[in-house]
Amino acid sequence: MGRAVKRNFRLVLEYDGASYHGWQRQHGVLTIQEVLESRLEIMLRSSIRVKASGRTDAGVHAEGQVVNFYSNTRLQAMEIQRGLNSLLPPDIVVLHAKEVPHSFHARFSASSKTYQYRILNRTVPSALERKFAWHIRRSLSISPMRQCLNLIVGTHDFSAFMAAGSSVKSTERCLFRAELNQSDPDRMIFVFEANGFLRHMVRNLVGTLVDVGKEVLSPDTFAEILASKDRRRAGITAPAHGLYLKSVQYQE
Amino acid sequence: MGRAVKRNFRLVLEYDGASYHGWQRQHGVLTIQEVLESRLEIMLRSSIRVKASGRTDAGVHAEGQVVNFYSNTRLQAMEIQRGLNSLLPPDIVVLHAKEVPHSFHARFSASSKTYQYRILNRTVPSALERKFAWHIRRSLSISPMRQCLNLIVGTHDFSAFMAAGSSVKSTERCLFRAELNQSDPDRMIFVFEANGFLRHMVRNLVGTLVDVGKEVLSPDTFAEILASKDRRRAGITAPAHGLYLKSVQYQE
Repeated sequence: MGRAVKRNFRLVLEYDGASYHGWQRQHGVLTIQEVLESRLEIMLRSSIRVKASGRTDAGVHAEGQVVNFYSNTRLQAMEIQRGLNSLLPPDIVVLHAKEVPHSFHARFSASSKTYQYRILNRTVPSALERKFAWHIRRSLSISPMRQCLNLIVGTHDFSAFMAAGSSVKSTERCLFRAELNQSDPDRMIFVFEANGFLRHMVRNLVGTLVDVGKEVLSPDTFAEILASKDRRRAGITAPAHGLYLKSVQYQE
Repeated sequence: MGRAVKRNFRLVLEYDGASYHGWQRQHGVLTIQEVLESRLEIMLRSSIRVKASGRTDAGVHAEGQVVNFYSNTRLQAMEIQRGLNSLLPPDIVVLHAKEVPHSFHARFSASSKTYQYRILNRTVPSALERKFAWHIRRSLSISPMRQCLNLIVGTHDFSAFMAAGSSVKSTERCLFRAELNQSDPDRMIFVFEANGFLRHMVRNLVGTLVDVGKEVLSPDTFAEILASKDRRRAGITAPAHGLYLKSVQYQE
Protein backbone atom coordinates (compact mmCIF):
# COMPACT_ATOMS: atom_id res chain seq x y z
CA MET A 1 0.00 0.00 0.00
CA GLY A 2 1.60 3.25 -1.21
CA ARG A 3 1.87 6.11 1.24
CA ALA A 4 0.13 9.25 -0.04
CA VAL A 5 2.52 12.01 -0.96
CA LYS A 6 1.98 14.64 1.65
CA ARG A 7 1.96 18.35 0.98
CA ASN A 8 3.83 20.79 3.19
CA PHE A 9 2.07 23.96 4.40
CA ARG A 10 3.62 26.99 6.00
CA LEU A 11 1.55 29.29 8.25
CA VAL A 12 2.45 32.67 9.72
CA LEU A 13 0.71 33.27 13.05
CA GLU A 14 -0.12 36.26 15.17
CA TYR A 15 -1.10 35.54 18.76
CA ASP A 16 -1.79 37.24 22.04
CA GLY A 17 0.15 35.08 24.49
CA ALA A 18 -1.71 36.25 27.62
CA SER A 19 -4.01 33.23 27.91
CA TYR A 20 -1.51 30.51 26.99
CA HIS A 21 1.31 28.58 28.58
CA GLY A 22 3.46 29.34 25.59
CA TRP A 23 3.77 27.60 22.25
CA GLN A 24 4.69 24.05 23.11
CA ARG A 25 2.25 21.31 24.14
CA GLN A 26 2.40 20.55 27.84
CA HIS A 27 0.30 18.24 29.90
CA GLY A 28 -2.47 19.93 31.85
CA VAL A 29 -2.12 23.47 30.51
CA LEU A 30 -3.42 25.23 27.42
CA THR A 31 -0.82 25.98 24.75
CA ILE A 32 -0.96 27.55 21.31
CA GLN A 33 0.37 24.40 19.63
CA GLU A 34 -2.40 22.32 21.13
CA VAL A 35 -5.13 24.77 20.10
CA LEU A 36 -3.78 25.03 16.55
CA GLU A 37 -3.36 21.26 16.13
CA SER A 38 -6.84 20.54 17.50
CA ARG A 39 -8.41 22.96 14.97
CA LEU A 40 -6.34 21.50 12.13
CA GLU A 41 -7.53 18.05 13.11
CA ILE A 42 -11.17 19.18 13.04
CA MET A 43 -10.68 20.72 9.62
CA LEU A 44 -8.45 18.11 7.97
CA ARG A 45 -9.90 15.07 9.79
CA SER A 46 -6.54 13.59 10.58
CA SER A 47 -3.93 13.93 13.27
CA ILE A 48 -1.58 16.83 12.53
CA ARG A 49 1.75 17.69 14.13
CA VAL A 50 2.90 21.24 13.66
CA LYS A 51 6.52 22.37 13.85
CA ALA A 52 7.26 25.94 14.88
CA SER A 53 10.32 28.12 14.26
CA GLY A 54 10.82 27.92 18.00
CA ARG A 55 8.94 27.88 21.26
CA THR A 56 7.61 31.02 22.78
CA ASP A 57 7.28 31.04 26.56
CA ALA A 58 4.09 31.53 28.56
CA GLY A 59 2.66 35.02 28.00
CA VAL A 60 4.94 35.91 25.07
CA HIS A 61 3.20 37.33 21.98
CA ALA A 62 3.86 36.70 18.30
CA GLU A 63 3.31 38.88 15.26
CA GLY A 64 5.04 36.48 12.90
CA GLN A 65 5.54 32.99 14.32
CA VAL A 66 6.15 30.55 11.46
CA VAL A 67 5.04 26.93 11.56
CA ASN A 68 4.72 24.09 9.07
CA PHE A 69 2.85 20.79 8.83
CA TYR A 70 2.34 17.96 6.36
CA SER A 71 -1.05 16.85 5.13
CA ASN A 72 -2.52 15.02 2.14
CA THR A 73 -5.54 17.34 2.13
CA ARG A 74 -6.86 18.60 -1.19
CA LEU A 75 -7.58 22.01 0.29
CA GLN A 76 -5.67 25.00 -0.97
CA ALA A 77 -3.52 27.03 1.42
CA MET A 78 -6.02 29.93 1.28
CA GLU A 79 -8.86 27.60 2.27
CA ILE A 80 -6.83 26.26 5.18
CA GLN A 81 -6.18 29.83 6.32
CA ARG A 82 -9.87 30.82 6.12
CA GLY A 83 -11.04 27.62 7.77
CA LEU A 84 -8.55 27.94 10.62
CA ASN A 85 -9.40 31.59 11.22
CA SER A 86 -13.04 30.70 11.60
CA LEU A 87 -12.24 27.86 14.04
CA LEU A 88 -9.47 29.46 16.09
CA PRO A 89 -10.15 31.64 19.15
CA PRO A 90 -9.74 35.38 18.40
CA ASP A 91 -6.36 35.57 20.16
CA ILE A 92 -4.73 33.31 17.52
CA VAL A 93 -4.84 34.37 13.85
CA VAL A 94 -3.32 32.86 10.70
CA LEU A 95 -1.85 35.84 8.82
CA HIS A 96 -0.63 33.90 5.79
CA ALA A 97 -0.73 30.33 4.52
CA LYS A 98 1.29 28.91 1.67
CA GLU A 99 2.21 25.54 0.24
CA VAL A 100 5.99 25.12 0.38
CA PRO A 101 8.53 22.55 -0.87
CA HIS A 102 8.66 19.30 1.05
CA SER A 103 12.06 20.19 2.46
CA PHE A 104 10.88 23.35 4.24
CA HIS A 105 11.11 23.11 8.03
CA ALA A 106 9.94 26.09 10.11
CA ARG A 107 12.84 25.66 12.53
CA PHE A 108 15.74 24.16 10.61
CA SER A 109 15.22 26.24 7.46
CA ALA A 110 15.18 29.55 9.37
CA SER A 111 18.18 31.81 8.84
CA SER A 112 17.28 34.25 11.62
CA LYS A 113 14.54 35.33 14.00
CA THR A 114 13.57 38.82 15.10
CA TYR A 115 12.17 39.68 18.52
CA GLN A 116 10.87 42.99 19.82
CA TYR A 117 10.62 44.01 23.44
CA ARG A 118 8.38 46.95 24.35
CA ILE A 119 8.84 49.22 27.34
CA LEU A 120 6.57 51.99 28.60
CA ASN A 121 8.84 54.41 30.45
CA ARG A 122 6.84 56.95 32.43
CA THR A 123 5.82 57.45 36.04
CA VAL A 124 2.22 56.27 35.62
CA PRO A 125 1.22 52.90 34.22
CA SER A 126 -1.04 52.59 31.16
CA ALA A 127 -4.57 51.22 31.27
CA LEU A 128 -4.61 50.42 27.55
CA GLU A 129 -1.07 49.04 27.18
CA ARG A 130 -0.87 47.21 30.51
CA LYS A 131 -0.79 43.80 28.83
CA PHE A 132 1.51 44.80 25.95
CA ALA A 133 4.56 46.58 27.38
CA TRP A 134 6.76 46.42 30.48
CA HIS A 135 6.08 49.49 32.61
CA ILE A 136 9.22 51.07 34.06
CA ARG A 137 8.65 54.11 36.28
CA ARG A 138 12.20 55.35 36.54
CA SER A 139 13.48 57.34 33.59
CA LEU A 140 15.89 55.29 31.45
CA SER A 141 18.97 56.76 29.78
CA ILE A 142 19.06 55.77 26.15
CA SER A 143 22.72 56.34 25.37
CA PRO A 144 24.33 53.80 27.76
CA MET A 145 21.77 51.19 26.71
CA ARG A 146 22.70 51.78 23.06
CA GLN A 147 26.41 51.39 23.96
CA CYS A 148 25.58 47.92 25.33
CA LEU A 149 23.57 47.01 22.23
CA ASN A 150 26.61 47.84 20.10
CA LEU A 151 28.71 45.55 22.29
CA ILE A 152 26.53 42.49 21.81
CA VAL A 153 26.16 42.61 18.03
CA GLY A 154 28.18 39.77 16.50
CA THR A 155 28.98 36.25 17.69
CA HIS A 156 29.21 35.78 21.45
CA ASP A 157 28.72 33.17 24.11
CA PHE A 158 25.47 34.42 25.67
CA SER A 159 25.54 32.04 28.69
CA ALA A 160 25.21 34.98 31.08
CA PHE A 161 21.78 35.68 29.58
CA MET A 162 20.52 32.09 29.34
CA ALA A 163 17.82 30.80 31.70
CA ALA A 164 19.40 28.94 34.62
CA GLY A 165 19.26 25.18 34.16
CA SER A 166 19.01 25.20 30.36
CA SER A 167 21.09 22.67 28.49
CA VAL A 168 22.08 23.28 24.88
CA LYS A 169 24.97 22.07 22.75
CA SER A 170 26.35 25.52 22.15
CA THR A 171 25.68 28.79 23.95
CA GLU A 172 27.14 30.84 21.11
CA ARG A 173 24.75 32.86 19.03
CA CYS A 174 25.27 35.44 16.31
CA LEU A 175 23.32 38.64 16.88
CA PHE A 176 22.84 40.46 13.56
CA ARG A 177 20.93 43.41 14.94
CA ALA A 178 20.37 44.97 18.38
CA GLU A 179 18.53 48.28 18.33
CA LEU A 180 16.64 50.57 20.61
CA ASN A 181 13.93 52.65 18.93
CA GLN A 182 11.52 55.17 20.39
CA SER A 183 8.06 55.74 18.92
CA ASP A 184 7.72 58.65 21.39
CA PRO A 185 9.76 59.67 24.45
CA ASP A 186 7.78 57.25 26.70
CA ARG A 187 7.83 54.22 24.43
CA MET A 188 10.94 52.18 23.73
CA ILE A 189 11.22 49.17 21.49
CA PHE A 190 14.24 46.87 21.58
CA VAL A 191 14.79 44.89 18.38
CA PHE A 192 17.01 41.78 18.31
CA GLU A 193 17.73 39.68 15.26
CA ALA A 194 19.90 36.58 15.62
CA ASN A 195 20.55 33.20 14.07
CA GLY A 196 19.03 31.78 17.25
CA PHE A 197 18.23 32.69 20.83
CA LEU A 198 18.95 30.88 24.08
CA ARG A 199 16.10 30.32 26.51
CA HIS A 200 15.04 33.68 28.08
CA MET A 201 17.93 35.38 26.26
CA VAL A 202 15.96 38.43 25.10
CA ARG A 203 14.20 38.87 28.43
CA ASN A 204 17.46 38.52 30.38
CA LEU A 205 19.21 40.95 28.05
CA VAL A 206 16.39 43.47 28.46
CA GLY A 207 16.32 43.05 32.25
CA THR A 208 20.05 43.81 32.35
CA LEU A 209 19.83 46.64 29.79
CA VAL A 210 17.16 48.28 31.95
CA ASP A 211 19.62 48.24 34.88
CA VAL A 212 22.06 50.06 32.56
CA GLY A 213 19.30 52.52 31.59
CA LYS A 214 18.66 53.17 35.29
CA GLU A 215 22.41 53.73 35.68
CA VAL A 216 22.59 50.96 38.28
CA LEU A 217 25.01 49.17 35.95
CA SER A 218 27.58 50.78 33.67
CA PRO A 219 28.15 49.67 30.08
CA ASP A 220 31.57 48.42 31.25
CA THR A 221 29.95 46.21 33.87
CA PHE A 222 27.51 45.00 31.22
CA ALA A 223 30.47 44.00 29.07
CA GLU A 224 32.01 42.16 32.04
CA ILE A 225 28.74 40.30 32.65
CA LEU A 226 28.63 39.16 29.02
CA ALA A 227 32.27 38.03 29.25
CA SER A 228 31.73 36.29 32.61
CA LYS A 229 29.20 33.82 31.10
CA ASP A 230 27.70 33.80 34.59
CA ARG A 231 23.90 33.95 34.72
CA ARG A 232 24.00 35.05 38.36
CA ARG A 233 25.62 38.35 37.41
CA ALA A 234 22.97 39.48 34.90
CA GLY A 235 19.78 41.36 35.75
CA ILE A 236 16.25 40.10 36.19
CA THR A 237 14.24 38.36 33.50
CA ALA A 238 12.00 41.03 31.96
CA PRO A 239 8.31 40.04 32.05
CA ALA A 240 6.88 37.96 29.21
CA HIS A 241 4.09 40.37 28.22
CA GLY A 242 6.55 42.90 26.67
CA LEU A 243 8.07 40.32 24.29
CA TYR A 244 7.01 39.72 20.67
CA LEU A 245 8.31 37.18 18.18
CA LYS A 246 8.20 39.65 15.30
CA SER A 247 9.32 37.60 12.30
CA VAL A 248 11.31 34.62 11.11
CA GLN A 249 13.62 34.98 8.13
CA TYR A 250 14.23 32.25 5.55
CA GLN A 251 16.62 32.18 2.65
CA GLU A 252 14.75 31.46 -0.55
CA MET B 1 -21.13 75.89 62.04
CA GLY B 2 -19.09 77.11 59.06
CA ARG B 3 -18.85 74.91 56.02
CA ALA B 4 -15.26 74.04 55.18
CA VAL B 5 -13.99 75.66 51.98
CA LYS B 6 -13.65 72.84 49.51
CA ARG B 7 -10.80 72.44 47.07
CA ASN B 8 -11.36 71.51 43.44
CA PHE B 9 -9.27 68.74 41.85
CA ARG B 10 -8.94 67.90 38.20
CA LEU B 11 -7.92 64.42 37.08
CA VAL B 12 -6.99 63.15 33.63
CA LEU B 13 -7.88 59.49 33.18
CA GLU B 14 -6.86 56.72 30.83
CA TYR B 15 -9.11 53.68 30.76
CA ASP B 16 -9.73 50.47 28.90
CA GLY B 17 -13.50 50.50 28.46
CA ALA B 18 -13.84 46.77 27.73
CA SER B 19 -15.00 45.76 31.21
CA TYR B 20 -17.31 48.71 31.94
CA HIS B 21 -20.78 49.86 31.04
CA GLY B 22 -19.38 53.25 30.18
CA TRP B 23 -18.59 56.25 32.35
CA GLN B 24 -21.86 57.06 34.03
CA ARG B 25 -23.25 55.37 37.15
CA GLN B 26 -26.07 53.00 36.39
CA HIS B 27 -27.93 50.68 38.66
CA GLY B 28 -26.82 47.06 38.51
CA VAL B 29 -23.82 47.42 36.17
CA LEU B 30 -20.21 48.38 36.74
CA THR B 31 -19.20 51.82 35.49
CA ILE B 32 -15.99 53.83 35.57
CA GLN B 33 -17.60 56.64 37.57
CA GLU B 34 -18.69 54.22 40.27
CA VAL B 35 -15.26 52.59 40.52
CA LEU B 36 -13.50 55.97 40.67
CA GLU B 37 -15.88 57.43 43.27
CA SER B 38 -15.68 54.33 45.45
CA ARG B 39 -11.85 54.53 45.51
CA LEU B 40 -11.95 58.28 46.24
CA GLU B 41 -14.31 57.60 49.13
CA ILE B 42 -11.95 54.98 50.57
CA MET B 43 -9.03 57.39 50.30
CA LEU B 44 -10.70 60.66 51.35
CA ARG B 45 -13.18 59.11 53.80
CA SER B 46 -16.11 61.11 52.55
CA SER B 47 -18.69 60.82 49.82
CA ILE B 48 -17.35 62.22 46.54
CA ARG B 49 -19.22 63.04 43.35
CA VAL B 50 -17.10 63.30 40.25
CA LYS B 51 -18.08 65.29 37.15
CA ALA B 52 -16.68 64.21 33.78
CA SER B 53 -16.21 66.15 30.56
CA GLY B 54 -18.87 63.86 29.16
CA ARG B 55 -20.07 60.28 29.27
CA THR B 56 -18.35 57.59 27.33
CA ASP B 57 -20.51 54.65 26.28
CA ALA B 58 -20.05 51.00 27.22
CA GLY B 59 -16.80 49.64 25.80
CA VAL B 60 -15.40 53.03 24.73
CA HIS B 61 -11.80 53.78 25.78
CA ALA B 62 -10.24 56.99 27.05
CA GLU B 63 -6.71 58.30 26.80
CA GLY B 64 -7.57 61.70 28.26
CA GLN B 65 -10.95 61.81 29.99
CA VAL B 66 -11.06 64.85 32.30
CA VAL B 67 -13.02 64.89 35.55
CA ASN B 68 -13.21 67.13 38.59
CA PHE B 69 -14.40 66.83 42.18
CA TYR B 70 -14.51 68.93 45.34
CA SER B 71 -13.02 67.84 48.64
CA ASN B 72 -11.73 69.42 51.83
CA THR B 73 -8.89 66.92 52.01
CA ARG B 74 -5.43 68.13 53.03
CA LEU B 75 -3.80 65.80 50.55
CA GLN B 76 -1.89 67.25 47.64
CA ALA B 77 -2.97 66.49 44.07
CA MET B 78 0.10 64.28 43.59
CA GLU B 79 -0.79 62.24 46.69
CA ILE B 80 -4.35 61.80 45.42
CA GLN B 81 -3.00 60.58 42.08
CA ARG B 82 -0.62 58.09 43.71
CA GLY B 83 -3.23 56.88 46.17
CA LEU B 84 -5.84 56.39 43.47
CA ASN B 85 -3.45 54.56 41.17
CA SER B 86 -2.68 52.09 43.94
CA LEU B 87 -6.40 51.55 44.68
CA LEU B 88 -7.82 51.51 41.14
CA PRO B 89 -7.98 48.36 39.00
CA PRO B 90 -5.25 48.29 36.31
CA ASP B 91 -7.68 49.21 33.52
CA ILE B 92 -8.23 52.70 35.01
CA VAL B 93 -5.22 55.01 35.51
CA VAL B 94 -4.94 58.61 36.72
CA LEU B 95 -2.46 60.22 34.28
CA HIS B 96 -2.42 63.67 35.92
CA ALA B 97 -3.94 65.33 38.97
CA LYS B 98 -3.98 69.05 39.69
CA GLU B 99 -5.71 71.46 42.01
CA VAL B 100 -7.72 73.95 39.95
CA PRO B 101 -9.76 77.11 40.64
CA HIS B 102 -13.13 76.58 42.27
CA SER B 103 -14.90 77.60 39.06
CA PHE B 104 -13.40 74.82 36.93
CA HIS B 105 -16.00 72.32 35.72
CA ALA B 106 -14.82 69.34 33.61
CA ARG B 107 -17.86 69.61 31.35
CA PHE B 108 -18.90 73.25 31.27
CA SER B 109 -15.38 74.68 31.13
CA ALA B 110 -14.38 72.51 28.15
CA SER B 111 -13.86 74.32 24.86
CA SER B 112 -13.56 71.16 22.76
CA LYS B 113 -13.13 67.40 22.88
CA THR B 114 -11.11 65.16 20.60
CA TYR B 115 -12.04 61.59 19.73
CA GLN B 116 -10.11 59.03 17.73
CA TYR B 117 -11.55 56.02 15.96
CA ARG B 118 -9.21 53.21 14.94
CA ILE B 119 -9.76 50.82 12.04
CA LEU B 120 -7.74 47.79 11.04
CA ASN B 121 -8.27 47.39 7.30
CA ARG B 122 -6.93 44.05 6.06
CA THR B 123 -8.40 40.69 5.14
CA VAL B 124 -7.32 38.88 8.32
CA PRO B 125 -8.24 40.03 11.83
CA SER B 126 -5.58 40.83 14.43
CA ALA B 127 -5.02 38.74 17.56
CA LEU B 128 -3.23 41.58 19.37
CA GLU B 129 -5.46 44.48 18.31
CA ARG B 130 -8.79 42.66 18.40
CA LYS B 131 -10.02 44.72 21.35
CA PHE B 132 -8.61 48.05 20.16
CA ALA B 133 -9.66 48.62 16.55
CA TRP B 134 -12.63 47.87 14.29
CA HIS B 135 -11.63 45.18 11.81
CA ILE B 136 -12.85 45.84 8.26
CA ARG B 137 -11.98 43.16 5.70
CA ARG B 138 -12.88 45.00 2.54
CA SER B 139 -10.32 47.49 1.31
CA LEU B 140 -11.39 51.09 2.00
CA SER B 141 -10.74 53.97 -0.41
CA ILE B 142 -9.20 56.86 1.44
CA SER B 143 -9.93 59.69 -0.96
CA PRO B 144 -13.78 59.65 -0.90
CA MET B 145 -13.73 59.33 2.90
CA ARG B 146 -11.50 62.41 3.09
CA GLN B 147 -13.92 64.29 0.82
CA CYS B 148 -16.69 63.59 3.35
CA LEU B 149 -14.48 64.69 6.25
CA ASN B 150 -13.94 68.03 4.49
CA LEU B 151 -17.73 68.36 4.13
CA ILE B 152 -18.48 68.00 7.81
CA VAL B 153 -15.91 70.45 9.20
CA GLY B 154 -17.71 73.53 10.50
CA THR B 155 -21.10 74.04 12.14
CA HIS B 156 -23.82 71.61 11.11
CA ASP B 157 -26.95 70.01 12.41
CA PHE B 158 -25.70 66.46 13.00
CA SER B 159 -29.14 64.89 13.65
CA ALA B 160 -28.55 62.27 10.96
CA PHE B 161 -25.66 60.93 13.06
CA MET B 162 -27.32 61.11 16.49
CA ALA B 163 -28.46 57.96 18.30
CA ALA B 164 -32.17 57.34 17.70
CA GLY B 165 -34.27 58.47 20.63
CA SER B 166 -31.79 61.02 22.03
CA SER B 167 -33.23 64.33 23.18
CA VAL B 168 -31.04 67.41 23.33
CA LYS B 169 -31.78 71.13 23.13
CA SER B 170 -29.72 71.64 20.00
CA THR B 171 -28.43 69.16 17.47
CA GLU B 172 -25.96 71.68 16.03
CA ARG B 173 -22.30 71.11 16.74
CA CYS B 174 -19.16 72.79 15.47
CA LEU B 175 -16.56 70.33 14.17
CA PHE B 176 -13.12 71.97 14.23
CA ARG B 177 -11.20 69.03 12.85
CA ALA B 178 -12.06 65.83 10.94
CA GLU B 179 -9.05 63.87 9.72
CA LEU B 180 -8.13 60.44 8.49
CA ASN B 181 -4.55 59.39 9.21
CA GLN B 182 -2.74 56.17 8.41
CA SER B 183 0.05 54.82 10.58
CA ASP B 184 0.56 52.15 7.91
CA PRO B 185 -1.54 51.03 4.92
CA ASP B 186 -3.64 48.70 7.14
CA ARG B 187 -4.25 51.08 10.03
CA MET B 188 -6.51 54.11 9.81
CA ILE B 189 -7.24 56.61 12.52
CA PHE B 190 -10.11 59.06 12.30
CA VAL B 191 -9.67 62.19 14.42
CA PHE B 192 -12.64 64.42 15.31
CA GLU B 193 -12.46 67.58 17.37
CA ALA B 194 -15.65 69.48 18.15
CA ASN B 195 -17.20 71.81 20.70
CA GLY B 196 -19.42 68.87 21.60
CA PHE B 197 -20.69 65.56 20.27
CA LEU B 198 -24.19 64.13 20.06
CA ARG B 199 -24.82 60.65 21.40
CA HIS B 200 -23.12 58.04 19.12
CA MET B 201 -22.13 60.84 16.73
CA VAL B 202 -18.57 59.67 16.14
CA ARG B 203 -19.55 56.01 15.80
CA ASN B 204 -22.41 56.85 13.42
CA LEU B 205 -20.15 59.11 11.35
CA VAL B 206 -17.52 56.35 11.16
CA GLY B 207 -20.11 53.69 10.26
CA THR B 208 -21.29 55.89 7.38
CA LEU B 209 -17.77 56.91 6.33
CA VAL B 210 -16.85 53.23 6.07
CA ASP B 211 -19.75 52.75 3.63
CA VAL B 212 -18.20 55.58 1.60
CA GLY B 213 -14.78 53.89 1.85
CA LYS B 214 -16.35 50.66 0.55
CA GLU B 215 -17.87 52.72 -2.29
CA VAL B 216 -21.34 51.63 -1.26
CA LEU B 217 -22.16 55.31 -0.69
CA SER B 218 -20.81 58.26 -2.69
CA PRO B 219 -19.57 61.48 -1.03
CA ASP B 220 -22.62 63.18 -2.63
CA THR B 221 -24.98 60.77 -0.91
CA PHE B 222 -23.06 61.32 2.32
CA ALA B 223 -23.69 65.06 1.93
CA GLU B 224 -27.39 64.37 1.33
CA ILE B 225 -27.56 62.23 4.47
CA LEU B 226 -26.03 65.03 6.53
CA ALA B 227 -28.49 67.53 5.04
CA SER B 228 -31.48 65.18 5.51
CA LYS B 229 -31.06 65.17 9.35
CA ASP B 230 -32.56 61.69 9.12
CA ARG B 231 -30.90 59.03 11.30
CA ARG B 232 -32.47 56.27 9.25
CA ARG B 233 -30.43 57.23 6.19
CA ALA B 234 -26.98 57.02 7.84
CA GLY B 235 -24.89 53.87 8.18
CA ILE B 236 -24.44 51.52 11.11
CA THR B 237 -23.04 52.54 14.47
CA ALA B 238 -19.36 51.54 14.44
CA PRO B 239 -18.46 49.28 17.40
CA ALA B 240 -17.44 50.87 20.69
CA HIS B 241 -14.05 49.18 21.00
CA GLY B 242 -12.50 51.30 18.20
CA LEU B 243 -13.39 54.60 19.89
CA TYR B 244 -11.08 56.64 22.16
CA LEU B 245 -11.78 59.88 24.00
CA LYS B 246 -8.35 61.29 23.24
CA SER B 247 -8.32 64.66 25.02
CA VAL B 248 -10.42 67.53 26.32
CA GLN B 249 -9.36 71.09 25.64
CA TYR B 250 -9.82 73.99 28.06
CA GLN B 251 -9.11 77.64 27.60
CA GLU B 252 -6.78 78.84 30.32
